[in-house]
Amino acid sequence: VHVYDRPVRFEEVDAAQIVFFPRFLSYCHEAMEGLFDAVGGYAHLVRIRKIGVPAVHVECDFKSPLRYGDVARIATTVEKLGRSSVTFRYAMTRAADGVDVATIGHVCVVSDLVALKGIPIPDDVRAALEKHRS
Amino acid sequence: VHVYDRPVRFEEVDAAQIVFFPRFLSYCHEAMEGLFDAVGGYAHLVRIRKIGVPAVHVECDFKSPLRYGDVARIATTVEKLGRSSVTFRYAMTRAADGVDVATIGHVCVVSDLVALKGIPIPDDVRAALEKHRS
Amino acid sequence: VHVYDRPVRFEEVDAAQIVFFPRFLSYCHEAMEGLFDAVGGYAHLVRIRKIGVPAVHVECDFKSPLRYGDVARIATTVEKLGRSSVTFRYAMTRAADGVDVATIGHVCVVSDLVALKGIPIPDDVRAALEKHRS
Amino acid sequence: VHVYDRPVRFEEVDAAQIVFFPRFLSYCHEAMEGLFDAVGGYAHLVRIRKIGVPAVHVECDFKSPLRYGDVARIATTVEKLGRSSVTFRYAMTRAADGVDVATIGHVCVVSDLVALKGIPIPDDVRAALEKHRS
Repeated sequence: VHVYDRPVRFEEVDAAQIVFFPRFLSYCHEAMEGLFDAVGGYAHLVRIRKIGVPAVHVECDFKSPLRYGDVARIATTVEKLGRSSVTFRYAMTRAADGVDVATIGHVCVVSDLVALKGIPIPDDVRAALEKHRS
Repeated sequence: VHVYDRPVRFEEVDAAQIVFFPRFLSYCHEAMEGLFDAVGGYAHLVRIRKIGVPAVHVECDFKSPLRYGDVARIATTVEKLGRSSVTFRYAMTRAADGVDVATIGHVCVVSDLVALKGIPIPDDVRAALEKHRS
Repeated sequence: VHVYDRPVRFEEVDAAQIVFFPRFLSYCHEAMEGLFDAVGGYAHLVRIRKIGVPAVHVECDFKSPLRYGDVARIATTVEKLGRSSVTFRYAMTRAADGVDVATIGHVCVVSDLVALKGIPIPDDVRAALEKHRS
Repeated sequence: VHVYDRPVRFEEVDAAQIVFFPRFLSYCHEAMEGLFDAVGGYAHLVRIRKIGVPAVHVECDFKSPLRYGDVARIATTVEKLGRSSVTFRYAMTRAADGVDVATIGHVCVVSDLVALKGIPIPDDVRAALEKHRS
């Protein structure tokens, strides 16, 4: 499991004064990017190797709101690894007190970003993801 | 059904040059806000009546990417209306050619934003939402 | 002068409940894009012709805040047109009552986006911008 | 001088594949928030004491673009401290090689966020800002 702490920023709340729910997915994407550090970073993967992981399915349960000043703690695991698909699971809690914030499932297809088509997961990427299997 | 056309903006793509998937949910939220025009607008609801619809569950299937210059067409329906919960469904297509982009389910709880607690859906709000029942 | 009305969105306020000031520049960028409609749209310019207008200088005076539910009215003029540089000026008011919100100056260099280098402003682009000279 | 390193995120580039210029101001705002750690954090100031620093003037010179994978290094100083106004100056470089990215001046008014009116800078806040005088 990979743990990432993400402070809520000043401009990430909405007019209801809580974090706008689509941003939870941005936080998860940031957490997920950390799993690719072992292969030179997600930026390297995307910009140099032209490989990325576009989402095909996302499922979220929201349990508690986050506010400016809170820190989201995101525990990421790889739930499934197929030939070209990966399923990430994120358990998000509030770092200060451990309160459940959200659980998110995120199915991606490892893709050639030029053709925008699925490819078999490269061996080094697969190895990096295997380390975080649940 | 309520139809909302939303052009993709210059800064809404990511380093893979396609719309960053959490933004699809922002587009849906904008579409949803339109349903409250019949009760004075969502801004009025949130700021004056202190009522909002925080998300408790979201489910998305992504089928085709969007790029800068595309227009997302979002057809919104109300799938379920409970005592305080509402389920919206969004069918997103690319306006230019009708290609399926995404389908999204979005369960909200009509809430008092001060206490951040569910409340029975007020009658006028219920009537506004009923008009878009699928 | 080119006038663009931009409603403030639910998620564009910050923890002080007013529009986060960098977003004023996003609003201006959207307004500016409208000036390129005469040459097929800014998206066409960027994606097909690989031409864009990166900023080199920006100056803003903020006079009144905007809140969710407000509409920003942006009057855009072209203040200067050089060989490859353009200076836009934006006067932003609150649409409901005409209150001054901000004035922004924005100097850009018309650029080849592949080399990221200034180029002489193409004739059709220059003609489109000339129409909005102050 | 207060130094803050801010990695460019996957979704912060635009359709020209460089960081969208208004985001530079978001990065600076994050850097600035760090100066308030000495008084319990900017979130505490905003949410508990209802004090914030809305911008009244901003000036930016952009010298080099940033891309996904780059890290913005932001050196923040307090250039002027008035009765209720503060002028911040940010020198932004690319962390990897020290290339100049941007310089930004940012004039704020320390304000009561309820009345949205300037107030004399509280002593503890003034002391915290004095430490970063240029």
